Amino acid sequence: MRSVDINCDMGESFGRWPMGNDAALMQYISSANIACGFHAGDPQIMRNTVRLALKYHVAIGAHPGFHDLQGFGRREIHMAPEEVFSLVLYQIGALEAIARAEGGVLHHVKPHGALYNMAAKDRRLADAIARAVQQAGTGLILYGLSGSALIDAAKAIGLRTASEVFADRSYQDDGSLTPRSQAGALIEDAVAAARQALQMVEQQQVLSLQGNPVALVAETLCLHGDGAHALEFARAIHQTFVDRGIEIKAP
Amino acid sequence: MRSVDINCDMGESFGRWPMGNDAALMQYISSANIACGFHAGDPQIMRNTVRLALKYHVAIGAHPGFHDLQGFGRREIHMAPEEVFSLVLYQIGALEAIARAEGGVLHHVKPHGALYNMAAKDRRLADAIARAVQQAGTGLILYGLSGSALIDAAKAIGLRTASEVFADRSYQDDGSLTPRSQAGALIEDAVAAARQALQMVEQQQVLSLQGNPVALVAETLCLHGDGAHALEFARAIHQTFVDRGIEIKAP
Amino acid sequence: MRSVDINCDMGESFGRWPMGNDAALMQYISSANIACGFHAGDPQIMRNTVRLALKYHVAIGAHPGFHDLQGFGRREIHMAPEEVFSLVLYQIGALEAIARAEGGVLHHVKPHGALYNMAAKDRRLADAIARAVQQAGTGLILYGLSGSALIDAAKAIGLRTASEVFADRSYQDDGSLTPRSQAGALIEDAVAAARQALQMVEQQQVLSLQGNPVALVAETLCLHGDGAHALEFARAIHQTFVDRGIEIKAP
Amino acid sequence: MRSVDINCDMGESFGRWPMGNDAALMQYISSANIACGFHAGDPQIMRNTVRLALKYHVAIGAHPGFHDLQGFGRREIHMAPEEVFSLVLYQIGALEAIARAEGGVLHHVKPHGALYNMAAKDRRLADAIARAVQQAGTGLILYGLSGSALIDAAKAIGLRTASEVFADRSYQDDGSLTPRSQAGALIEDAVAAARQALQMVEQQQVLSLQGNPVALVAETLCLHGDGAHALEFARAIHQTFVDRGIEIKAP
Repeated sequence: MRSVDINCDMGESFGRWPMGNDAALMQYISSANIACGFHAGDPQIMRNTVRLALKYHVAIGAHPGFHDLQGFGRREIHMAPEEVFSLVLYQIGALEAIARAEGGVLHHVKPHGALYNMAAKDRRLADAIARAVQQAGTGLILYGLSGSALIDAAKAIGLRTASEVFADRSYQDDGSLTPRSQAGALIEDAVAAARQALQMVEQQQVLSLQGNPVALVAETLCLHGDGAHALEFARAIHQTFVDRGIEIKAP
Repeated sequence: MRSVDINCDMGESFGRWPMGNDAALMQYISSANIACGFHAGDPQIMRNTVRLALKYHVAIGAHPGFHDLQGFGRREIHMAPEEVFSLVLYQIGALEAIARAEGGVLHHVKPHGALYNMAAKDRRLADAIARAVQQAGTGLILYGLSGSALIDAAKAIGLRTASEVFADRSYQDDGSLTPRSQAGALIEDAVAAARQALQMVEQQQVLSLQGNPVALVAETLCLHGDGAHALEFARAIHQTFVDRGIEIKAP
Repeated sequence: MRSVDINCDMGESFGRWPMGNDAALMQYISSANIACGFHAGDPQIMRNTVRLALKYHVAIGAHPGFHDLQGFGRREIHMAPEEVFSLVLYQIGALEAIARAEGGVLHHVKPHGALYNMAAKDRRLADAIARAVQQAGTGLILYGLSGSALIDAAKAIGLRTASEVFADRSYQDDGSLTPRSQAGALIEDAVAAARQALQMVEQQQVLSLQGNPVALVAETLCLHGDGAHALEFARAIHQTFVDRGIEIKAP
Repeated sequence: MRSVDINCDMGESFGRWPMGNDAALMQYISSANIACGFHAGDPQIMRNTVRLALKYHVAIGAHPGFHDLQGFGRREIHMAPEEVFSLVLYQIGALEAIARAEGGVLHHVKPHGALYNMAAKDRRLADAIARAVQQAGTGLILYGLSGSALIDAAKAIGLRTASEVFADRSYQDDGSLTPRSQAGALIEDAVAAARQALQMVEQQQVLSLQGNPVALVAETLCLHGDGAHALEFARAIHQTFVDRGIEIKAP
């Protein structure tokens, strides 16, 4: 029997502005990436989200992002690698203290948004993030895009990693995600998404948008928590794995 | 031989704006209260300040404040105690991760500015802060105004405390600080400040502005790091303790 | 025939976080109080909200608040009156430029949240806000709680004012709002709210929670834009005025 | 007799953090670019800086930047042109209201830091900024790097412009500034800087780092307000112009 992790970004409300459907999604996932106050989340929301994860026995991860509430961490911001190191370390520490206070343990780190995307390609950023995760603690696992510079950087210093794949995004022949600006980038049908998820986990490959099989490492699957169909996708994918006897658990 | 702690607020620069004279003051103190990014400091400055403290063998403390850069944490902000709990826990965690990454250990917590002053009088705020310090970690010592609600709250839950006194502020007959708005509130002469510091530490009492001896607990002495005379005061007080054989060390 | 203004807080989304139901509510109101980026809103949202107001021929007002996104401007922050003057002036100017760029004109100013409440009682704050409105421009009308220090301060310097009343809050015998912490503070039935609104506008008095008629000045009625029943209340109150031949228009 | 404008960034303190030497520099300049609270400055500091400019009869300009206090607006942030339009318009409006309240008039706009540099090359950003300046007001002049896309964009919509040159930076044969990362980028001698300033203004050309004369449009000269030698450079350049009978005045 194989197993796979399902992760989802959580705690992305801010102050009086709610976002997402955390309570409903927790039952379908094994890892929660909790926003740390820089692109979303605030100290109070972080605590509430940690509690929710503990209630559902979901692994608690830090989800550090650029300091950009208005842009939700999705704007590229050009910072020196040393600054990114400190930025990530700070956010991990903040969430870890909150997790510890609630009786939990910090399990992993997944960068958010533009930071995630930039670190997938920029090895110096990736190195800075990997070092921050290593120095923050104790056996933390770094989640990054499968095949990315971030995974390479983490492995190079002996960090445990989880290679992330997407059920609702199509892939190119070279294993990269189809850019959102191109037709066919998004998989909008829950059944098709579940089928792709299953193929990636069982076969460690995906059928590219061009129709060719492409090998990839699929250790953790990202569910998107926002959007109208988030719950429907979550249920479909979760059920597909259960039906095939694939255990859903955090690495 | 008696000993006393000398603490100073540190790391209160922000971004490209420098503040204070941290490097010069470190040699005179035993505890550094390091700003945590909410009223001053940023992740990069926090790391640099932690390194400086380690270089001078000065105990590293978190200095959490209200989230108010423009007001430098000196404006009263009315938050629910639960929110203050989360606010403080978050900032302690952020600094602790940075201290750990640099090979240091977090030693104490001292609230900043308006948060310090409000917690000296408001027991519910004080309780929230004391709980945050307790749950953040491992033998952390809470620094608070001698005789304040914050010290009471910390003792009530079994936290270690350090009662703080001021060399450059005059006291009233009831043991409170003379409000800054009143004449005689500030002691502007370094010799007089050193004399008051010595009396507080050796006799655990102070001569009030009205001229009466007032008992107080003096476990840690606060040096102000800003102002034109900060270094002069630091040297005078430090030398006075050395001359009297009083060891300067963190609790 | 009498007329009355109906105002509503608008543009209180932030970044990717939506709030309220601005487009649906615009048809029922005559004045929009648009958040200016400090407690809610951002430059892009401000523009979109101004456009929406212009489309519905609703008067455009600035809705300045404390600089506190996390607390949504509802936390008391203690600032010097001079600082509040600058804070308010800044926000008015920002919205005015946006309104002008879209072909609109700034019509009024209504302080938000804790700033509104504090200025209702604290004459020095009220004076600072009134001066900021006066110096910001050209015939701006200041909206404030009926009978408050803010209205007094504005009248004292010759500003035009609009005295604000609430359909969904009960009043005390002294004309003040029943504190939210007390039973009966909120009027949760749309019919009762519409009835109170009508009485206030037609008779310039309200029946207090204690059952006594209390005189007040009712020039603008506040609709709350959030909450499950916002639209229902808006429709009921709007229809009641229409049925009685009371024109709904901005002062 | 020729004339030239000398401009300087001003009001770049924030909260309790001072920066620059505004009062001393005002006597040497004809245009002040005043930070608008996003990368530096706050509403109170903006007022104080406007007053200072009025006292010295210096033209008041808005100096909008990215919303990035920690990075002082010097980090590239990737925003959509429409967002940049709103960002700039907001900041211009805020400063204009403050200038008006103090009895002044807004005269020009100069983007700050990374926004200035990006708009020098990216025509879409440049167009967005030019439109914001045009719609903000009334004859505002846009200051931009001589020969840049920002100047082109402004001219294309009929805005008045001032082409900016630097006394303390060397130029390349193609008229661009030598990148700071290259040797010889900075001119660190006040006499040499004054000589280059004079040549640019009198001859509308500069000697490139490679030793060749390069034509450029020099309508406003930027003085840097920070750095140890800011005042010395200011005096030297100012005196050189005075000695040659070149009038220093805002466009």
